[in-house]
Amino acid sequence: MAKTLIKNIGLYRNHKITEHGNIEITDDRITAFPEKIEDISAYVTVIDGKDMLALPGFINTHNHIAMTAFRSYADDMQLMDWLEKKIWPAEACLNEEVVYAQTMLGIAEMIRCGTTGFADMYFFMDQVAEAVKDSGIRACLSRGLTGITPNADAALQENLDFYRTWHNSCDGRITVMFGPHAPYTCPEEYLYKVVDTARSVGAEIHMHLSETKAEVDNHRKQYGLSPIAWADKVGVFDCGCLAAHCVHVDDEDLEIMARKKVRVAHNPGSNLKLASGTAPIGKMLKKGITVSLGTDGASSNNNLDIFEEMRLAALIHKGVTYDPTIIPAETAVNLLTEGGAAALGYRDAGKLEIGYKADITLMDREGLHWYPRNDVLSLLAYSANSMDVDTVFIDGKPVLKNKEFVTLDIERIKARAEETKKQLLAAVESV
Amino acid sequence: MAKTLIKNIGLYRNHKITEHGNIEITDDRITAFPEKIEDISAYVTVIDGKDMLALPGFINTHNHIAMTAFRSYADDMQLMDWLEKKIWPAEACLNEEVVYAQTMLGIAEMIRCGTTGFADMYFFMDQVAEAVKDSGIRACLSRGLTGITPNADAALQENLDFYRTWHNSCDGRITVMFGPHAPYTCPEEYLYKVVDTARSVGAEIHMHLSETKAEVDNHRKQYGLSPIAWADKVGVFDCGCLAAHCVHVDDEDLEIMARKKVRVAHNPGSNLKLASGTAPIGKMLKKGITVSLGTDGASSNNNLDIFEEMRLAALIHKGVTYDPTIIPAETAVNLLTEGGAAALGYRDAGKLEIGYKADITLMDREGLHWYPRNDVLSLLAYSANSMDVDTVFIDGKPVLKNKEFVTLDIERIKARAEETKKQLLAAVESV
Repeated sequence: MAKTLIKNIGLYRNHKITEHGNIEITDDRITAFPEKIEDISAYVTVIDGKDMLALPGFINTHNHIAMTAFRSYADDMQLMDWLEKKIWPAEACLNEEVVYAQTMLGIAEMIRCGTTGFADMYFFMDQVAEAVKDSGIRACLSRGLTGITPNADAALQENLDFYRTWHNSCDGRITVMFGPHAPYTCPEEYLYKVVDTARSVGAEIHMHLSETKAEVDNHRKQYGLSPIAWADKVGVFDCGCLAAHCVHVDDEDLEIMARKKVRVAHNPGSNLKLASGTAPIGKMLKKGITVSLGTDGASSNNNLDIFEEMRLAALIHKGVTYDPTIIPAETAVNLLTEGGAAALGYRDAGKLEIGYKADITLMDREGLHWYPRNDVLSLLAYSANSMDVDTVFIDGKPVLKNKEFVTLDIERIKARAEETKKQLLAAVESV
Repeated sequence: MAKTLIKNIGLYRNHKITEHGNIEITDDRITAFPEKIEDISAYVTVIDGKDMLALPGFINTHNHIAMTAFRSYADDMQLMDWLEKKIWPAEACLNEEVVYAQTMLGIAEMIRCGTTGFADMYFFMDQVAEAVKDSGIRACLSRGLTGITPNADAALQENLDFYRTWHNSCDGRITVMFGPHAPYTCPEEYLYKVVDTARSVGAEIHMHLSETKAEVDNHRKQYGLSPIAWADKVGVFDCGCLAAHCVHVDDEDLEIMARKKVRVAHNPGSNLKLASGTAPIGKMLKKGITVSLGTDGASSNNNLDIFEEMRLAALIHKGVTYDPTIIPAETAVNLLTEGGAAALGYRDAGKLEIGYKADITLMDREGLHWYPRNDVLSLLAYSANSMDVDTVFIDGKPVLKNKEFVTLDIERIKARAEETKKQLLAAVESV
């Protein structure tokens, strides 16, 4: 039993911050919050939390992580131009080596920003899973499935194989969902097949829903139903669903989402940058819908800084609803932590509690933006930034310490990302 | 003549980035961009810019800097509750010592984020000017004036004295404007007096205009004119005007603003957090109106990170106008740099050009979010963060180097900010 003590630290527990706390970690779990340290020699590792803040590790609930390859590759374009002229041709040239290298880059970036778990939907998912395994992060992975391509059935089989191989692997760090991409890429018959297959193994579903107004309008024309109502009809929500975006949802949609316990991945940065709009998360939260935060891929964000998404979520909804109280500081921090864990179905992560996984992010409070000190939760939500993240534990293991990576070779990761990106773009140009 | 060389660095010039450039600084000015370094011994200081990016120093064009005292003091409240119950009673207890200490804190925070110049409107302005003088930053200062308080005329006299004492002082680092607070705090007769006084010395005006919908609606009821049309009628724009916010402006307002060369301080973070809305800066830019970025005070933001405002400006207007091309990366960077300089009336700052002031911000590109490298300008606008700022020159002098302050005693600044805030809040409670 390896015991770690984080001592004399500010703790975010029960939606409040208390100072001068202690956290005991035994192996992969939080085992105590001792008020006094009787015997310091009982701990293999002792971390001094002076002037730091301990939070549940941040969760990024929507990503296409290997798209870090396309960070800053194509910006400031209309959506269909961007997809058809730049992203899809480039994606067609991806291979296993690129995906592994870019995924490692993305994971490292997320850890640096305090992220301990993420959800992904892409392809070459075995390589993504290998990178998750190697890096020590927690992840909920799905194979992106489109029913309109020749390999639709093969991809579904791949998702099934992937589920069987990786679900609950790496001491439970990796879980797997099915990933039907979106209503406009999954014809009804195909989506029924996906749902049946997911149901046959008890898997949940990760899907883009109601991201743009055009998608919703077209869907209503084609099916006479909103994407949400249609997904419900096909049985997506009966599997358990992590729904990305949900920007253009009406009150009927929200009723369905609440009733069917749909968990939302809100991606404010991507929704703004791609000009999709702003999801009504204030209404969702009032209805008791689980809301969490995602960065989306780095090609539409352009970073994987989930703390920046928290800031965006805290700010934009006040501005667009003209209600300064709609997402208060506490709510914003919860979206980042327990909301994220709930969205990914983690029952023992997302809070600092005894028995919970030791996925813990420590932020330092040395920065000038932490002064003067009035309300710590407000400082966290409205003034801090992700570079304040000092130390990150995942599954009880330190992966970042004093802002340095403990296990990952960052220079090699950066170099490999650059090399494989160059190979990829050379391949794209030679097509 | 003290000569500095920044060598082998990425340069943002003419709205483009070129790699492997060199910058020669002589005293307070940029004097050359040598292609080859003939004699390195000619330089007293040589900075290796390897993997860094040189930008014109960032400009924060709207602030109430001493309000750092109230950072996280009152959040998630309705605007009038916030002002009446929290901010105004606390402001009534401010004194010179508090203002100096909080201003130093705010200046240090701004420098850390790459800011080389800012505009301020507040009171105890001599202390603000002393802090500007002591810190080495550039500033455009105005005494906040309200016509509805007993000291209205005294405050105007103060602004005039302040102008005579400080305008163009400290080698031109400090300039002074007149600061009539807002249409709803300056009755017409008073505003005429302010305009006359400003005109008598050739001073410009810094004023809040059309910040909230309620302000505009009330103003139209009272005066039959929008705040913009009314300010124009009273002669504010004939003095030259830095107008903060301009959130609720219609096409007629925009016509006036374009014709009268009103320069706008856009404060996206504050406008969102206080639920004021989003200013139509896309339209402004199309009309050729000068737009710049401000943080507003730390009590309504809650940090003074102007780079974060740039990111917000780059993202939110895409989302609310449904146009992903409305504020491209280059425009966002220009708001932060040359737009800011133009807004404050700086004719020789805001660009990296020969003869311009050596106000230069260097950002490192070591962070994972800078990989892989496709388009540097996109990486800057959409992926970088202010903690990438490595070195800051103002007026040719280094004030930040390798992320450490060169001249400021940061620990003392933080401690004084905390001490004076405590004294202030004790005074507030004893009232």
